[in-house]
Amino acid sequence: MIITLSADAELDRVRRELTGRGLWIASTEKSSEGTTHLVIGRESSESDPRELATIAGVRSVSATASPHPMMDAHGPEVTIGNVTISAKAPVIIAGPCSVESEAQIRRIAGLLRERRVKLLRGGAFKPRTSPYSFQGHGPEALRWLRRAADEHGMLVVTEALSEADVPAIAEHADLIQIGSRNMHNYALLKTVGRAAKAVLLKRSMAATIEEWLLAGEYLLAHGAKGIVLCERGIRSFDDSTRNLLDLGAVALLAHVKKLPVVVDPSHATGKREIVLPLAKAAIAAGAAGVMIETHDAPHDALSDGAQALAPGALSALSTWLDGSMR
Amino acid sequence: MIITLSADAELDRVRRELTGRGLWIASTEKSSEGTTHLVIGRESSESDPRELATIAGVRSVSATASPHPMMDAHGPEVTIGNVTISAKAPVIIAGPCSVESEAQIRRIAGLLRERRVKLLRGGAFKPRTSPYSFQGHGPEALRWLRRAADEHGMLVVTEALSEADVPAIAEHADLIQIGSRNMHNYALLKTVGRAAKAVLLKRSMAATIEEWLLAGEYLLAHGAKGIVLCERGIRSFDDSTRNLLDLGAVALLAHVKKLPVVVDPSHATGKREIVLPLAKAAIAAGAAGVMIETHDAPHDALSDGAQALAPGALSALSTWLDGSMR
Amino acid sequence: MIITLSADAELDRVRRELTGRGLWIASTEKSSEGTTHLVIGRESSESDPRELATIAGVRSVSATASPHPMMDAHGPEVTIGNVTISAKAPVIIAGPCSVESEAQIRRIAGLLRERRVKLLRGGAFKPRTSPYSFQGHGPEALRWLRRAADEHGMLVVTEALSEADVPAIAEHADLIQIGSRNMHNYALLKTVGRAAKAVLLKRSMAATIEEWLLAGEYLLAHGAKGIVLCERGIRSFDDSTRNLLDLGAVALLAHVKKLPVVVDPSHATGKREIVLPLAKAAIAAGAAGVMIETHDAPHDALSDGAQALAPGALSALSTWLDGSMR
Amino acid sequence: MIITLSADAELDRVRRELTGRGLWIASTEKSSEGTTHLVIGRESSESDPRELATIAGVRSVSATASPHPMMDAHGPEVTIGNVTISAKAPVIIAGPCSVESEAQIRRIAGLLRERRVKLLRGGAFKPRTSPYSFQGHGPEALRWLRRAADEHGMLVVTEALSEADVPAIAEHADLIQIGSRNMHNYALLKTVGRAAKAVLLKRSMAATIEEWLLAGEYLLAHGAKGIVLCERGIRSFDDSTRNLLDLGAVALLAHVKKLPVVVDPSHATGKREIVLPLAKAAIAAGAAGVMIETHDAPHDALSDGAQALAPGALSALSTWLDGSMR
Repeated sequence: MIITLSADAELDRVRRELTGRGLWIASTEKSSEGTTHLVIGRESSESDPRELATIAGVRSVSATASPHPMMDAHGPEVTIGNVTISAKAPVIIAGPCSVESEAQIRRIAGLLRERRVKLLRGGAFKPRTSPYSFQGHGPEALRWLRRAADEHGMLVVTEALSEADVPAIAEHADLIQIGSRNMHNYALLKTVGRAAKAVLLKRSMAATIEEWLLAGEYLLAHGAKGIVLCERGIRSFDDSTRNLLDLGAVALLAHVKKLPVVVDPSHATGKREIVLPLAKAAIAAGAAGVMIETHDAPHDALSDGAQALAPGALSALSTWLDGSMR
Repeated sequence: MIITLSADAELDRVRRELTGRGLWIASTEKSSEGTTHLVIGRESSESDPRELATIAGVRSVSATASPHPMMDAHGPEVTIGNVTISAKAPVIIAGPCSVESEAQIRRIAGLLRERRVKLLRGGAFKPRTSPYSFQGHGPEALRWLRRAADEHGMLVVTEALSEADVPAIAEHADLIQIGSRNMHNYALLKTVGRAAKAVLLKRSMAATIEEWLLAGEYLLAHGAKGIVLCERGIRSFDDSTRNLLDLGAVALLAHVKKLPVVVDPSHATGKREIVLPLAKAAIAAGAAGVMIETHDAPHDALSDGAQALAPGALSALSTWLDGSMR
Repeated sequence: MIITLSADAELDRVRRELTGRGLWIASTEKSSEGTTHLVIGRESSESDPRELATIAGVRSVSATASPHPMMDAHGPEVTIGNVTISAKAPVIIAGPCSVESEAQIRRIAGLLRERRVKLLRGGAFKPRTSPYSFQGHGPEALRWLRRAADEHGMLVVTEALSEADVPAIAEHADLIQIGSRNMHNYALLKTVGRAAKAVLLKRSMAATIEEWLLAGEYLLAHGAKGIVLCERGIRSFDDSTRNLLDLGAVALLAHVKKLPVVVDPSHATGKREIVLPLAKAAIAAGAAGVMIETHDAPHDALSDGAQALAPGALSALSTWLDGSMR
Repeated sequence: MIITLSADAELDRVRRELTGRGLWIASTEKSSEGTTHLVIGRESSESDPRELATIAGVRSVSATASPHPMMDAHGPEVTIGNVTISAKAPVIIAGPCSVESEAQIRRIAGLLRERRVKLLRGGAFKPRTSPYSFQGHGPEALRWLRRAADEHGMLVVTEALSEADVPAIAEHADLIQIGSRNMHNYALLKTVGRAAKAVLLKRSMAATIEEWLLAGEYLLAHGAKGIVLCERGIRSFDDSTRNLLDLGAVALLAHVKKLPVVVDPSHATGKREIVLPLAKAAIAAGAAGVMIETHDAPHDALSDGAQALAPGALSALSTWLDGSMR
C-alpha cells in the first residue's frame, strides 16, 4: 500500500496517525515533483484504504487487491460438529504418531478422553524421508481410528499424502491434515479442497506466512469448509530443538490476521522435556489449540519416541487451560 | 557422548533407559568387530557418565569435556542488590530504546516504578546500522539514567558498544548489556568480563545455543559476576515479524540447561500488537523475565516507535505475572 | 562412523592419516576405560571402513549402513538416447517457463537448436503459489512440446505436478522434472519412479543434501532409470537474489559424492544480469549442465520475464563451454 | 523507488521499458483516484531517476536517498602499492590460518611467491569461539608477517579484533581485515576507518547485502581508503559444507553494484576437496580474487587443517587464472 501525501501535509503527524493504527512504514519516498509517498509494509494490520484516505494530509491511498480474499474473510473459528476451534477456548488434539494397531488406538483414545481431549489424531499414511521406513497401516488404520474416536465421541484428525487416498480419508476424518511437506503440493490441495471438509494445514518448513495463507486460499477456492492453520516449527540454522517453533507467526496470525492457528510443539522440538512449556507458550501467544503427540508407552514407540508424552502428562495441561490465566 | 554396549546387551532396553533419561540417540553404529555404539545428541539432557555406565548392557561411556564448564555450573538465578532474576519470579525490564533527555528518562522511570518494574533500561550508546544515524547521547545519558533509577530505587541496564566505554558503563550500570551484534566481539566480552559485573548477554541473530553459551563462558572466564541470557529473535527467511523469536531455545535453556533467560519481544517482532502476547508466551516457556521497550509517547519516538509500548500497557502484564497461572 | 583407537595409538598420526583421506573429525571422545573414539562427520569423503581399519593405531571402525544405497551406486552420468549428462561435457537445457502456444515453442526450439542446445524444457503444468494464476496449458502443451523437440532432434524436459498426470507426461517427456515444491511429495515420487524414466530432481528450498539424496532414493527404489539432481537456490534470510544458489552443494555432490547435478541460475536469482555469470560459476564448480529460462521476447513474457534470456544470449555460453577452460 | 504513471500510460509498454533496464517491479498499486504506481525492488540495477522520468507514460519518479553514498561512489577496484584488486585481473590472497612461528611464515611466503601470490595473509590475533582456545601470537606475529612479506615483495593482510590493537596492525598491514564476527562491531569499524588504510571487509554470517554495504559505509565515512568486500559463506540450515558460499551475492555485487569482492572458499566449506572448484566458480561469478588458506604441512596444522591446501595446489589455480577463459 502506498499513501500519497498532499503538499501541505505535516509528515510527522501523518506518520503518527498511521503507526497509531498499527501500520508499519517501510519507506518514505519523495518524487521529482516534490510529492511524498509512504510505502506501508505488507504485514501491517489490516486497514480500510477509504478510512485512511480521510486522515488530514493524505491525498490518496493506493493498494493492490489481496491475493487471498477467501482467507481474509475466513474468521477466527472453525466449527466441526459440536467442537469449535477458537482461541477463546483452546483445544487439545492428541494421539500417536502412527496408528500401530486397533487395540493401541482404542486404549489411547480412552486415556485421552478422560483428560477431556476431543480430537484424536493418528497417522494411517506416514510421510517418511526414507523409502525403506514404515509407511503406515493405510486404509485399515483409518477404520481403526474412526471406530476408536466414535467409541469415545471424539473427532478424527489424520493426514492425506496422496491424491488417490483422499476419498477414503474424507470418509473417515473430520479434519483432514495437510502435512508440512505437502503445503506446496497444489495437486493435493485441490483434491482435498474438493472433499469439502475442514482442513488442518501445516506450515511448510520454509514457508513465509504469505505463502501459507495462499495454500489456505487454494483449499478454500476448491471447496474446503474451513482452515485451521498449524505451526509446527520451521527450518533454521540451529538444530538444538530440531525445528524452530515460530510463535511470533502464531501471535501475528491470531492477533493481527484473526485466524485460528494450532501449534504442534512435539514435532517442533523433538524433546519431551519442553513440549508442555511450549504448549503453554503457544496458548499464551494466541493459539486456538495445541496438537500433542501422545503414546501410551512412549519409550517403546517405534518412531519419534523421544518427543511423545504419556496421556497422563496432558492432565496438567487440561487443568492449566481451564484456569483463568491466559 | 558415545555409549558402547556390551556383547550381550538388549539394544531396545538400553535405548529405552537412555531416552527415559532425556538422552537423544543421534545414531547407532556397529563396528567391524560386532560392537554397538550409540552416539548421543549434543543437546540432550545433562547426565552423569558414571551413572550411565551402570545401566545394564552398557560397557563404557565416552565423553568430551564440556567447552563451557563455568556456564554449566552457573545455576538458574542471578541476584543483583535486592533483585533476583529467576524463572520462579519473572521480572520486567523496561524503558526507552534511547535515553533522549534527562526529563524523559525521569518521567518514564516514575511511570514504570508505579507498575512495579524494578529494572530500568535505556540506551546511551546505540548500535546503528547506518553511520549517519543518531548514535546516542553517550556518557551524559549514563548519568541521567543512573539518577532516574536511583530516584525510584531501580537498577540500571544499559549496553556497552566499545571497549573504551566500559569503565564509564561499569560505573553507572548494574547489569551491562552486550547487544546481539557484539555477541561474537571477543575483545568486548573480555573487557566487560573484567569489569566484574552481572551481564545481560543478547543472542546474536545467527548464533547457535552452543555459541551463545561459549560467549557467556568468555564473560565468566574473565570475571563477570553472573550471566542473564537474552533471546531477542534470530534471523530467518520470513520478515513478517522482523526477527524470529526462538522460544524453543528459551524452553531448552530454562528447563534442560537450567539457566536464566529473559526475552525481548519488542525487538524480536517490531509490532506493538503482538508484544504482550509474546511476553506472556515467553514467561510460559520458562523465561526469567521480559524486556519491553517503553516510551511515554510511543508515536513520537524517533526510532522504533512501531514497537514501543506506553508504560500503562505494562500494568496488565504485571497483574498477569502476579497471577497463579504460569 | 566411529573410529576406535588401540591403546598404543599415536593420536596425531592417526588424525593426519584420516584427514589426509578427506575425512572430517567431528569430535574426539575418551571413554571411562581410557579408549579414544574419533567421530567422523557425515559429509566426509566416502571411505571403505575395511581399508580404514588397517591404519596403524586403529582398533576398529563402526559404521551405519547408508540410507540411500541406490544413490550411492548411481554414478556420475545419465544417458538418455544419444545425450549424456555428465560434468565431463556439460549440457545446456533451455526453453520457456510456460509453453504458451505451439508456434512459440517451435520458434524457440529452432533458435535454441542453432545454439547447440539438445534439451528443450517448457512447462505444461505450472506450480503457482496463487490458485488464481495461470496453471499451464496442460496435455495440449505436452504435445506441442514433443512435436517441437522432435522437429529439431531434441529431448523434452517437463514437470509433473500431479500423480494423475504422470502417464501423459511419461509418454511425452524424456526427462521428467520433479519441482522443488514436490521434492518431499512422496506419493508423486513413487508414481514418477514407476514410470521408469530418467528424472530431473530439483532440490526443495529447505532440503539438506541428505534429504535430497533420500528423495532420489525414493525414485530409484520405485524404478526410475537415472537421477539428475538440480540445484535451483535455497531459501535464505536475504532475498536480494530471490533464492540463494548453493554452489557449495554442487561442488560437494560433483567432487565428493560423484553425482550429476545441473544448476538452474534463472530461478535461483530472478535477475537477468547475473544468470550467465552464475551459469559459468556452476560449470566451474562441477555441474553437469545448466538449465536456462529462455524466451524469444523476454520483456513480453507473461511471467518471470525479469529472469528470462533471449536465445541469442546462449551463444556466448555455448562458446565458453566449448573452450578448454573449466 | 516508486514510478507513478500518467493517466494515459500503456502499462505493459512501461513495464517492458523498465524490466529492459534491469529494474524489478515489486508491486503494482492503484490509487483510489485511479493513479497507477509501480514499486521498484531495492536490488534492481542502478538507474538515474531523471532518465526514467523521460519514459513515455511515466508521470513522476520517487526515490529515497541511498543510505550508503560513499559505497555507491566507490568503484570496482582498490589499488594498494603496485597491486590492483579488480575483477579484470583477479588476485590470490594466501597464507596460513595462524602465524605459528617466524620460520613457518617465511617458508610459506617463499612457496607462495613462487606461485605468483602477491598478498600474504596470516592471523596474529585469532577470533576463537572458545575462551580456552589459542588466541594467536599477537604483536610478535605481526612483525614476523611483515618481515616475511617484505622479503618477497608481498603485501600483508591481517585481521583486527580489538580497538586497542588497531595502531599496531595499521603499522604492519597493507589491507586490514574485519572478520565476519565483527562486521557489526561499529566501534571497531570506526577505529579501523580512522587508520586510513584499505580494508578487507568480511560479510557477517547473517548479514544481508544491504547491511554489508552499510558496514563498508561506516569504514569509508571514518576514513578508510578503499573497501574490498569478502564473501566467506553465510549461515544456513545445512551444515554439509559448514557455511553456505553465496556466489549469487558475489555476482550481484560485481555485475550490478560494480564493487570489488573476493571470496574465501576455505572457511566457507571446511573441505579441502572442493576449495579449488569453488575458487574457480567464484572467479567465474565475477570475483576480484580469492583468499585461500594455505599451510606448508596441512595435515599438521593445529587448527582448520581439513580445509588448508599445500602451496603447490595453488599452481594449478594460478595457471587457470592466466588462461583466457573466465
